[in-house]
Amino acid sequence: MKKILFVLVLVVYFNLTTKSQVLNLMPWPSEIKMAQGQFNINKNLRIIVDGQPDKRFQLNLIRFIQQLSKRTTIPLDRDTIITNAEASIIIKVNRSGVVKLGENESYSLKIGKDKILLISETELGAMHGLQTLLQLLDRNNSSFFFPCLEINDKPRFAWRGLMIDACRHFIPLEVIKHNINAMAAVKMNVFHWHLSEDQGFRVESKVFPKLHLMGSNGEYYTQEEIKEVIRYANERGIRVMPEFDIPGHASAWMVGHPELASAGGTYKIEKFFGVFDPTIDPTKKETYKFFEKFFKEMAQLFPDEYMHIGGDENNGMQWDKNPKIQEFMKNNGIKSNHELQAYFNGNLLKILEKNGKRLIGWDEIFQSSLPKTIVIHSWRGRESMEEAARKGYRSVLSNGYYIDLFHNCSEHYLNDPLPAESKLTTEEKNRILGGEATMWAELVTGESVDSRIWPRTAAIAERFWSLASVNDVDDMYRRLDAINLLLEESGIEHIKNREMMMRRLCNGSNIEPLRALIDAVEPLEGYNRHGSKRYTTEYPLSRVADVALSDAPDFVRFRLSHNDYLKTKNRENYSKMMNLLDKWSSNQQAFYALASENVALKEALPLSDNLAELASITRKLMGQFNAGIKNSSAETDALRIQVEKLNKPVAEMELPLFKVTLDLIGKLRNGEKEE
Amino acid sequence: MKKILFVLVLVVYFNLTTKSQVLNLMPWPSEIKMAQGQFNINKNLRIIVDGQPDKRFQLNLIRFIQQLSKRTTIPLDRDTIITNAEASIIIKVNRSGVVKLGENESYSLKIGKDKILLISETELGAMHGLQTLLQLLDRNNSSFFFPCLEINDKPRFAWRGLMIDACRHFIPLEVIKHNINAMAAVKMNVFHWHLSEDQGFRVESKVFPKLHLMGSNGEYYTQEEIKEVIRYANERGIRVMPEFDIPGHASAWMVGHPELASAGGTYKIEKFFGVFDPTIDPTKKETYKFFEKFFKEMAQLFPDEYMHIGGDENNGMQWDKNPKIQEFMKNNGIKSNHELQAYFNGNLLKILEKNGKRLIGWDEIFQSSLPKTIVIHSWRGRESMEEAARKGYRSVLSNGYYIDLFHNCSEHYLNDPLPAESKLTTEEKNRILGGEATMWAELVTGESVDSRIWPRTAAIAERFWSLASVNDVDDMYRRLDAINLLLEESGIEHIKNREMMMRRLCNGSNIEPLRALIDAVEPLEGYNRHGSKRYTTEYPLSRVADVALSDAPDFVRFRLSHNDYLKTKNRENYSKMMNLLDKWSSNQQAFYALASENVALKEALPLSDNLAELASITRKLMGQFNAGIKNSSAETDALRIQVEKLNKPVAEMELPLFKVTLDLIGKLRNGEKEE
Repeated sequence: MKKILFVLVLVVYFNLTTKSQVLNLMPWPSEIKMAQGQFNINKNLRIIVDGQPDKRFQLNLIRFIQQLSKRTTIPLDRDTIITNAEASIIIKVNRSGVVKLGENESYSLKIGKDKILLISETELGAMHGLQTLLQLLDRNNSSFFFPCLEINDKPRFAWRGLMIDACRHFIPLEVIKHNINAMAAVKMNVFHWHLSEDQGFRVESKVFPKLHLMGSNGEYYTQEEIKEVIRYANERGIRVMPEFDIPGHASAWMVGHPELASAGGTYKIEKFFGVFDPTIDPTKKETYKFFEKFFKEMAQLFPDEYMHIGGDENNGMQWDKNPKIQEFMKNNGIKSNHELQAYFNGNLLKILEKNGKRLIGWDEIFQSSLPKTIVIHSWRGRESMEEAARKGYRSVLSNGYYIDLFHNCSEHYLNDPLPAESKLTTEEKNRILGGEATMWAELVTGESVDSRIWPRTAAIAERFWSLASVNDVDDMYRRLDAINLLLEESGIEHIKNREMMMRRLCNGSNIEPLRALIDAVEPLEGYNRHGSKRYTTEYPLSRVADVALSDAPDFVRFRLSHNDYLKTKNRENYSKMMNLLDKWSSNQQAFYALASENVALKEALPLSDNLAELASITRKLMGQFNAGIKNSSAETDALRIQVEKLNKPVAEMELPLFKVTLDLIGKLRNGEKEE
Repeated sequence: MKKILFVLVLVVYFNLTTKSQVLNLMPWPSEIKMAQGQFNINKNLRIIVDGQPDKRFQLNLIRFIQQLSKRTTIPLDRDTIITNAEASIIIKVNRSGVVKLGENESYSLKIGKDKILLISETELGAMHGLQTLLQLLDRNNSSFFFPCLEINDKPRFAWRGLMIDACRHFIPLEVIKHNINAMAAVKMNVFHWHLSEDQGFRVESKVFPKLHLMGSNGEYYTQEEIKEVIRYANERGIRVMPEFDIPGHASAWMVGHPELASAGGTYKIEKFFGVFDPTIDPTKKETYKFFEKFFKEMAQLFPDEYMHIGGDENNGMQWDKNPKIQEFMKNNGIKSNHELQAYFNGNLLKILEKNGKRLIGWDEIFQSSLPKTIVIHSWRGRESMEEAARKGYRSVLSNGYYIDLFHNCSEHYLNDPLPAESKLTTEEKNRILGGEATMWAELVTGESVDSRIWPRTAAIAERFWSLASVNDVDDMYRRLDAINLLLEESGIEHIKNREMMMRRLCNGSNIEPLRALIDAVEPLEGYNRHGSKRYTTEYPLSRVADVALSDAPDFVRFRLSHNDYLKTKNRENYSKMMNLLDKWSSNQQAFYALASENVALKEALPLSDNLAELASITRKLMGQFNAGIKNSSAETDALRIQVEKLNKPVAEMELPLFKVTLDLIGKLRNGEKEE
């Protein structure tokens, strides 16, 4: 039965590819049928709500109206919502929803020329429906409108999360809030707040105030602020799950509480990044007395069912060196540090359960001695997640969604928590709850974090919500472009702050030559940037590389045209490519004029030179490709050496064009066989 | 003695006109001497603080270091501040300052090649010195640096304020805070918070919770938030003065407390703008019992010495119609509504004095029966302020600083609270405390308010701080351009949000044709926009006119070139002008392509057409001017008729170029006398 439904839905999806080109929905709904005509919006728009939604729905509806009004410039005020007369938007919600794992979030939306009908079991579904409506808003020369269509929609995975590390750099409250608002815009439902690290303890504890007072340099969230974030997220249908990372990554705890450590001495807040020795002592009774009190306080502060205890990257150095710990292990038959950590987790689990919480932690907590109620959060790989599923544990995937590593959006997008080739049984598959994008904060500040999270996380949100069959990369990039502007309206400052940072770098000069360069380059991927300098928590992160995006926007355009041109030899795409190549060549001089007397920009000069040269080579190669002229093996080798030189990282950035050029060189090689 | 000093300082200022061209200081310091060389900034920069500053100085110094680090991309962390070794920046502060009217805010700054010395009586002066340093930051191809120089600086007026009306539209807390931060960047020291109006009561009252709960649609500041704003402002040396506007402009009070009104019935929060009837009943004992409790609560919440009671635009309608009030007036020998309001104010004054507060109010409160301790806040004109000064009252000027009315910056800049021609005696002059820019909020939301306040308020800040002789409009506009970017770094979203609003209007299309148009047009000045539509508090204010600036940036550039060209016939300025005229002509087609299918932009099409035609006429006239060709009286008349047609307001905007063109037509008229 389930399989048949799946096939039907697929048919619907594929049938619509042509028409759906004009829709900018993300995540793509599970079922959509286009119809003729449009529903026009004017100031007489009236909305009626029927049924028993939670009161959060009214607040979401008011925000929907305000956003609609801003975008349409049409005055639509609170009187738009009526209770006792004829309305053109009718919303029916069967019952009040609860913001917890597995709640019904489905909705159906039918847009006719005169009436819109939005129906859902809980208001959480109707709230998703309102976001779909905002994404559908279109305009022509005489009005704003919604296109007529029918949508039936529900999530593929119940756990669709974003983790923000607020420790390595403190992330201001307002930034947290507008990220939660953006999550709601793309139907995500778990905000995972990474709150303790070597670099900072970020929560006010009234029971142990030395934790935040000594462990945070004054940068922490008060309990009032945390309550406000939880209220704000709950209003948007989003769970807030805190993470207190123990026993490793725990230096900041020990600044105020050195007695928690597995070695004597004093501790300081870590400035550098990596894996450090300070580790909680899991053998002392006092440790658990401390956590009894601590988690009791935090369990009351954070109402979510789940408490994340981290557990990753414990290097075991302090345990190995401490004779008392070694003795404890011997006396208790504990054979490895991994087993000792499992012992620690078992004790924590009891504490959490006493406080009505379920335990979740990173891969490292996985030990079959722990009960099946725990959830494994997989950062190391899909394999370990599947292994857990086979052994009866539920899990959440973050491997492949490390958005701090500057990978292209497509890599995350194509990373399916449950790929078609998965060998898991249906029962095991059901244990894969979903996934989380993870924003680790070594290389971001409150100023730049949005541009690292968005828009890529919208594509990840689609992976968690939409059918596995929705996986056309080019179409995703096309829609992402439109969603990007909606994300901005939700408060995200990814576009705004990047422009500001460019203005600051250019110091009053016209920023366009910098933009032309930076829109064609990408920051070094993976851990290359971390490794290139000894970054610290107080590094300003205001350099050129900090405004480069993981998907260089002009290069994305180039690639889309290029891909299509190789297939179709379409002339329009050819000239789009040529225009971009010309832009990159001719920008060299303008960027030199801008940067040569500005010490902040000077480091990017070689990159601008390389881009110009690479663009000019690529232009020549494209001409050859077009004319069908091939290169000899020697010419090919010479070309490869020439372009390899242009592929050196400059100021922690690189040129994505390089791969296209290299590929072209290969394609243009004379028929002789490569060795 | 004072006069001699004044002349000396002037000499210093004028001597530096050439050199000072490169400095982007605003407000301009009272004394500045340039020297040779520069102080380079690198990661070894160390700062030492000597003396007894208040602890707020440390926080300001950390923010200074962080901003310096962001701008220079040089890692400068908390360890930059040292206490016991050789430092290159030495700061000496004699004593802890108090954030109140008349506190010493002077400082001196000496920048040598290896040492910077910043000396002040209180940390408030040193904080101004840090802002001066940030404005002096410069760069070349090898380093960031401060130019060597010597500055002695102090304010001309002690009261340098910005008022924000948070009632007609609610202004979010974060927006209030970054505005306060920007005020500090231009050495302002009074934040005047307009907190009650017909359209909203914006403060949580624990004594009378119906005030905010029923009077605000849920949009108000909690007492915790207010305390946070006061702490934030105090840290930046800025007073927070609240205004509770009574007896008129008081509808919102009466929603929860109809017993305060001078007429029976129920009241609602006003949606429209203007002057409304609801007025406090000044004759009932219960009124004063209410205010006794209310002002006791607010006096404790707001620590500033001054409490603003508004008092403007009481239309007296409810008083005239209420027989009991009429009888009360008769029985007490009160002959006019103005006298009745003075009676009311007298009673309020007693309440405020009991709570340790001084009373300040708008012009209308002025009645010589009130003691000389009150301060008159003049919105109606300099004359009424001077009259008050002659009668012994102190006053603050806002007439001429109504930044909500879309006037050019130069108009506010040249409006001196104490112009050279003033006939006041020295003693009377000393009663003029300063002034305040006033941001009334009929036509702004949290999204757009920054672009209405800034950068113009920086020029007003200079008027209040700098010598009267600093009044070169062209130089002000030149410096304002640089200060604009620093304002952005202080958190102001005037540039960012305008770009976002343009992106929203263009719905994903390239915004450049809109920018080219909008950078050449201005919103209708004065009360013309208010009058053009029945705006309400819930109008979205997201139209094209809402992104037009009071000083159209391209037109400012045009005018600067034009002014200079008329004087010097400089060819470079001629081509700058021609380039802009060409840009305006050629943009017509691009804007048509962008706007003709977008209902949100369509209303601006005639404006784009008019601009193109006006630019093309102006281009022709400039050619004539250049060639010395005159027009006959008939040709002149025909031209005037032609351009007058292009001067019609379109979608609440107009073309500042029109005046230049009209002026040119006059200049090119044949020698015949005008009738």
